[in-house]
Amino acid sequence: MSRIVIALGGNALLQNGEKRDYETQYAHAYQTFENLRFVTENNETVITHGNGPQVGDIQQSHDISGIAAHLHQSVAMSQGYIGEILANAYGNIRTKYGLRKNIFTIITRVLVDENDAAFSNPEKPIGRYYSDEGLEEAKRNGWIMKKFKDGWRRVVPSPEPREILEEPVIEYLLHNGNLPIAVGGGGVPVVRRGGSIYGIDAVIDKDLASSVLATAINADFLMILTDVDHVFINYGKPDQKALHEVHVDEIEKYLREGQFGEGSMKPKVMAAIRFVKNGGRKAFITSIENSMNALSGRSGTIIVQ
Amino acid sequence: MSRIVIALGGNALLQNGEKRDYETQYAHAYQTFENLRFVTENNETVITHGNGPQVGDIQQSHDISGIAAHLHQSVAMSQGYIGEILANAYGNIRTKYGLRKNIFTIITRVLVDENDAAFSNPEKPIGRYYSDEGLEEAKRNGWIMKKFKDGWRRVVPSPEPREILEEPVIEYLLHNGNLPIAVGGGGVPVVRRGGSIYGIDAVIDKDLASSVLATAINADFLMILTDVDHVFINYGKPDQKALHEVHVDEIEKYLREGQFGEGSMKPKVMAAIRFVKNGGRKAFITSIENSMNALSGRSGTIIVQ
Repeated sequence: MSRIVIALGGNALLQNGEKRDYETQYAHAYQTFENLRFVTENNETVITHGNGPQVGDIQQSHDISGIAAHLHQSVAMSQGYIGEILANAYGNIRTKYGLRKNIFTIITRVLVDENDAAFSNPEKPIGRYYSDEGLEEAKRNGWIMKKFKDGWRRVVPSPEPREILEEPVIEYLLHNGNLPIAVGGGGVPVVRRGGSIYGIDAVIDKDLASSVLATAINADFLMILTDVDHVFINYGKPDQKALHEVHVDEIEKYLREGQFGEGSMKPKVMAAIRFVKNGGRKAFITSIENSMNALSGRSGTIIVQ
Repeated sequence: MSRIVIALGGNALLQNGEKRDYETQYAHAYQTFENLRFVTENNETVITHGNGPQVGDIQQSHDISGIAAHLHQSVAMSQGYIGEILANAYGNIRTKYGLRKNIFTIITRVLVDENDAAFSNPEKPIGRYYSDEGLEEAKRNGWIMKKFKDGWRRVVPSPEPREILEEPVIEYLLHNGNLPIAVGGGGVPVVRRGGSIYGIDAVIDKDLASSVLATAINADFLMILTDVDHVFINYGKPDQKALHEVHVDEIEKYLREGQFGEGSMKPKVMAAIRFVKNGGRKAFITSIENSMNALSGRSGTIIVQ
């Protein structure tokens, strides 16, 4: 039995262009746990997940309706929203196969540093597009707006995750055959000011936050699940090559060469490297369908010490 | 040390007419934990809470923006939203006084019976008012609309809570100096169909759900905190009388006489009666400020066997 942090990518709940309703996301979540049930039942696992489309919808909904909610509150809401879907789906897989573990979602706050460079250089776009006309209204909210191809969007800081505030509870629960869902969407971003905790408007990369959690709870493995079976180098070129078992120093070299896409594969590779460099045994980057094979070393990209 | 379920009323986060932003709710939550910290630190406590104004805002926000979210999903979102506020506030009280316990929010699902009479007679109004003109649009969503003094509103079923699905985890966590927040807004309503769990559009009374939780975890006390120090009989009449220590049979007689307001004191009294009749030692109905005094028997309404 190993201790594993499983970071689910967006495709665990949605495919591109699908309607983002309960039924669609439930169906994907159900299939996700069909694939993951051997891994979750036979190891100590924590599930983490992204929230990109969902928190965008929630934030946009607030923008349109004028509800008084900060972005960190939208992240907390997205944890409840996705947590329910995952819990219902797993619960039904549990009944179907007579599994043993109790799933439940822990609203998770993640400490960031107010002096993080990301706060003076917000780059992560969230929510809807605004026309030139809508720009003034958006700026009245105090938002920083940036022009993209299809219009203006709000950009927010994406600071480094430092500490998982609910980590003691998550670790405690792992001992007893429980299956916590935690650090959803990278966690609710909070800062410490004069000994007190405050929510702050930012979004945290979920793979980097999952890596911090995995290190903190002394996980054996960090398993980052996405929509491809492997990490590639020279991606999309004639000499494209899938990485199988790869030493952490080798993949770090590829990272420095700029081999991995910003906002997609790069943060996953960074999260994997950090975990292994901080003492983790192995990090996996692979697809949900391939997770069992990856764990037994037969497939996927496996980053080793 | 006793085991206590503390059900927070709406005034733990908001007063009537206040702006429902993070800062206002945080300030009330902070004051709530100033008042509750001796009780929470020296007993095994679970915090539950209402979500009336918050889930109304969230649902209304979805109605306006057209986001695809069911009511049960709005409840799950409200648990995350309120859970973050409570966790930040308690965490800062914890730092201030050097308290020991870890707070965290568990997204909690509560099983209801699809054959509950409430489903054929939805009575609980939620969300915004609609004019006669907006009525057709609202009905297109499949909603049941009812005319109130100020216009049409959506009404939803408020079925009886039967079982707290996350109860095993909540009970497990109580043993180790943790402070779970659970059953927010009465819980995310789910039904069981052919062995599987599905979310269903309803709202569950948070005091009744807290009573079910308190019985399930063998709590000594159920403490229902609201904005008055006592339950009254003949309320608002010349012979109005505050109840102090009262036998469960006596308050049940008052309940049958129709002494307690629908949707306000009645469900609290019902929750208290059920808890005591199911073996609980005492149920308290009092104000947050008065909680310590109530526990030591000096004040508040105390329902005993």
